[in-house]
This record gives sequence, C-alpha cells and structure tokens, in this order.
Amino acid sequence: MAATKIAVVGIGKIARDQHLPAIARSGAFELAAAISRNERVEGVENFTDIQAFLRNRPDVAAVSLCAPPRPRLQMAVSALEAGRHVLLEKPPGATVGEVEALVALARKKGVVLFATWHSRFASCVEPARRWLSGKTIRHVEIVWKEDVRRWHPGQAWIWEAGGFGVFDPGINALSILTAIAPPVFVTDATLEVPENCQTPIAAQLTMRGVTGFEVTADFDWRQEGPQTWEIRVDTDAGLLVLADGGSRMSIDGEQRPGGLEAEYDGIYARFAGLLASGESDVDLAPLKLVSDAFMIGRTVDVDAFHD
Amino acid sequence: MAATKIAVVGIGKIARDQHLPAIARSGAFELAAAISRNERVEGVENFTDIQAFLRNRPDVAAVSLCAPPRPRLQMAVSALEAGRHVLLEKPPGATVGEVEALVALARKKGVVLFATWHSRFASCVEPARRWLSGKTIRHVEIVWKEDVRRWHPGQAWIWEAGGFGVFDPGINALSILTAIAPPVFVTDATLEVPENCQTPIAAQLTMRGVTGFEVTADFDWRQEGPQTWEIRVDTDAGLLVLADGGSRMSIDGEQRPGGLEAEYDGIYARFAGLLASGESDVDLAPLKLVSDAFMIGRTVDVDAFHD
Repeated sequence: MAATKIAVVGIGKIARDQHLPAIARSGAFELAAAISRNERVEGVENFTDIQAFLRNRPDVAAVSLCAPPRPRLQMAVSALEAGRHVLLEKPPGATVGEVEALVALARKKGVVLFATWHSRFASCVEPARRWLSGKTIRHVEIVWKEDVRRWHPGQAWIWEAGGFGVFDPGINALSILTAIAPPVFVTDATLEVPENCQTPIAAQLTMRGVTGFEVTADFDWRQEGPQTWEIRVDTDAGLLVLADGGSRMSIDGEQRPGGLEAEYDGIYARFAGLLASGESDVDLAPLKLVSDAFMIGRTVDVDAFHD
Repeated sequence: MAATKIAVVGIGKIARDQHLPAIARSGAFELAAAISRNERVEGVENFTDIQAFLRNRPDVAAVSLCAPPRPRLQMAVSALEAGRHVLLEKPPGATVGEVEALVALARKKGVVLFATWHSRFASCVEPARRWLSGKTIRHVEIVWKEDVRRWHPGQAWIWEAGGFGVFDPGINALSILTAIAPPVFVTDATLEVPENCQTPIAAQLTMRGVTGFEVTADFDWRQEGPQTWEIRVDTDAGLLVLADGGSRMSIDGEQRPGGLEAEYDGIYARFAGLLASGESDVDLAPLKLVSDAFMIGRTVDVDAFHD
C-alpha cells in the first residue's frame, strides 16, 4: 500500500522531537509538507499558513496538528472542511465543547479525527490495563512532578488563559488513568496559580471512581532534580506501580516487562489503522477531568514564575 | 392514577418559593416528606438526614433534590442506590463528570433521573425555539444582570470553590440558548472574581455556534435597580428578543404571545411524564459551557464582595 502523504502543522519542540522522527520511521506515512510561521523543515515544501497549504496541496490527505490548543482550533476546522484526515497532539483542544464540534464536523465530512494521548502508548500502559481488568481497585495515587523550565522552555502560551499550566503534563497522567481504570470524576481540586500567570504551576486533585475507589493526584511543575511520573494502583490482588510515565511497571515490587517503548510510533501506527478502517478515535475523558477541576478548583496564589 | 409520593431535600429559598407550591398544585405528586438539617415543612414527616428518610420511607418513590450542588452529589447517589427516582434542581451537579456518573447509576438501577433547567420552561422559550427552527442565526447577544443580594441573600456556598458564582444565574441563560439554537462552544471568557471569593461576580463569554454564528454573554451580579435577563437573536428573518428570562418575546419589536408562565409547574408535569415513560432526561450542554469557561477563562481580580 502506498504511504499516505501527511503534513505537520506547528513545527515546535514536540514536532521536531517526536512527530517528524516518528513519521520518518513510519512506513505508513510520507512527510509531504510543513506549516509554520517561523520554522522550516528541510526536504519538503514549507508553508507559513495552513490556508495556502490546503489550497496548493490537495494531494496531502492527512494533517498532524502540533500547534498549541488555542490557535489549533481554526486549523483543525479548516483542515476538516477541506476534507483532510486530522491527527491532534494532546490536549486535543482548549475546551471540551470545541472538540465535540470537531467530532461532528469530521463525521459530516466523512474524514478521520484522531485525538492522541501519547502517554497511552507508553510501553507498560496496555499491560497495566490488562492486569487491572477484573480486579478491584481500592485506591490510586498519582504523583506527576517535573521541571517546567526543562520541558517547556520559553513556551509563554502555557501560562496564558486556556494554556493548561501544569495540567499540560498532568493530563498525560489522566490519560493513563482513564485508559486503565473505570471512570472517575473530580470531587476536589486545589490550583496553585503564580501571581503573574493565569494557569496553575501545581495542582492537587481528588477524584472518585464510579465503582467507589478514590484517586489522589499531585501535579507539580517546580520539581528540580529527578523527575517523577508515577501512578500507584492499590488493588485486592496487589499494588501495581507504573513509573517513568508508563514505561516501567512493577507489581508488589517485582518488575514486569512492558512492550516496546515507542509512544509516537504507536500513535502513527494507530492513525494508519484508523485511516484504513475509516473510524475516528476521540476520547474526551482526560480533558473533561481537567475542565471539571478548573470549575470546582480552589485557587491559591503562589510566587510569581519567571522562565 | 394515584399521585406519586415525593420528598423534597434541601428546604431553602428555592424549595419554599417554587418546589413546594408547584408540588402542592400538581395532581401528579403528593408531598410525603421533607429533609433538611435546620428547616421543617408543616404537615409532612420531617427528617434531618436523607439516610434516615431512605430507611424509613420506602413508600416514597421520588425525591426532589434542592440542596446546593456540592452536598447534593452524595444525596443523589444514596437516593438512586435506594431505587428512588431523582429530580435535580439546576445546576445538576458541581461537575460534568459527577452527573455523568449519576446517569450511569440511574440506568443501572432502572430509575428516572431528571436534570431540570427551570428557565427552559419559561413561557416563551418553546415558542422561540419553534420560530428559530430552520432560520439562520447570525448573532446572539445575552445580557443577564441581576442583584445577587436580592436573589441569593446570605448564600455563602455560591462564593466558595465549585459554587458557580454568577454562573448560577448565567447557566439559566445558557440553558435557554442551548434549547433554542444549534450547539455552541466557548472561545473566550473573562471571569471577574472578588478578591475575597473563589467564584466570579461577573463574567463575559464569547461562544461560537458550530453553524458559524457568534454568541456574546454578559453576566453580572452587581446590577441594582431594574434587572435584565435578555437574549437577542439576530437571524436572516428578523430579530427575536427573549426578555424577562424567557417570559416575554418580540420579533422585530412586535410582542408575541407565549404560553403559560409556569416554570416549576412545567418541571413537575415533565417529571410526571418521565416517570410514566421510564425515561431519564439529562442534558449537560449548559454545564459543559460553564466548565469550559472556567478552563479557558482569564481571571481578573475585582473588589471584595460583602453580603
């Protein structure tokens, strides 16, 4: 089967670190264009504007949107209106409502929409889901602490309204939680917002599973030194620990093997599968948890943040 | 048909002003009990605790929950678990996720869950919906300004995290909007939060309809003198104005007749219909708009509020 021509929109850190290499390794996709206001990708046609790309390259069937969520909406609408299949980097949008509108538009145009959650493709997430299936969860503890200066250097949009703040990494943890455990909802949230920012630098959530268990989540962007991305699931059959963002797993202290460590290769393999079947894949559960946390969260002012 | 026995939980202003009189007028329901920590209703059995009510009155098939959204969740779970039909005053919960969990629980228990939006029963809302059907909306302007001291005297919970603030009345406007127009999503929001409160006293929203029109909403709780609850819908066939919270309507300046002014009578008539058919009715569109507004809203500090 011929490779599907794909364009990447938004050539920033995540596109260069992950999407372009994964597309280059993929047999299913061929990079055909790049769209960015300021950046260029060697070896393909470059556009500074998605409208010009859509007009000039009707041969490119798929678009991968890596721009931040707020400017991304209009790009997604334009690409879907032009009949292109669309892959969305996480989070899939700035609001639950706009992504629901994109789902309706994709359906109307008969194209595929894929809202990706890269952490769900970490090597131990699927093994964890399988191990937990059928067991009774008693409690889940999420600790997700990293250094924002290391992972988001100079990204001003994350601190602006709609920019998610620490929920940008935190939603990765929530995307794993909602993949491996029964549905949960937020019962309490504290949002620590720097006095010069609109979004939290740290947040503590309490959630409840509909089957009765409690989940606590501790998100912090001020962690220097070792970084922590851990989910501990206490069950009637032992303690499962997902560490390193889902790439390591132990049960009662004993390491268990995962699959291949290939988050973005997994994403593009899944996108190829969706294109073959014509199905969309949009799970809004992680975004709904964040939205609800903002609605009921108690805001606490903390020290100003300077990049 | 015998009247269905019903209990009212949370005997505050809205229960005394609206629910108890509507139940008294209704032929379909008979008030059988009241549950409140501090208040009593004459002529029926009173409980201070919903668990005691559920244990002692298995004959009461339906429960109307008028407590504030945050304490209401556990009451709703208990009532549904006990196999009672449940009516929820608006907003139906503190989060979208918890109401989705209630929907799943009601389905599992085979009982009816009715998330009410009383403004949808204002006399001109259904006529407005019919008139707008098939017409093209160009723009919607919502102005919803009232005096919080007049309508919510001493209600501390509205200012606490999860208490909605000005979205408590604002969600009434959103419940009308989502009943009469195609789906919309929030594209911008400003939240004016008093420095001694956790929730906004005023908010300005911009929304977009999936069919292309824009909606602006101006919510303000600092309006003294005349109160304004107005929705102006500009269409290709003229300007529809819903005034007084949906109880008056004009088209291009000409008054149009509405139905009966009977918001809560309409709610209990609908509840009786749902009990007869065994269907639930839970539309989360208004709550999702509020949740998204909190997620992308820009917070502006304003003067402290003192009741």
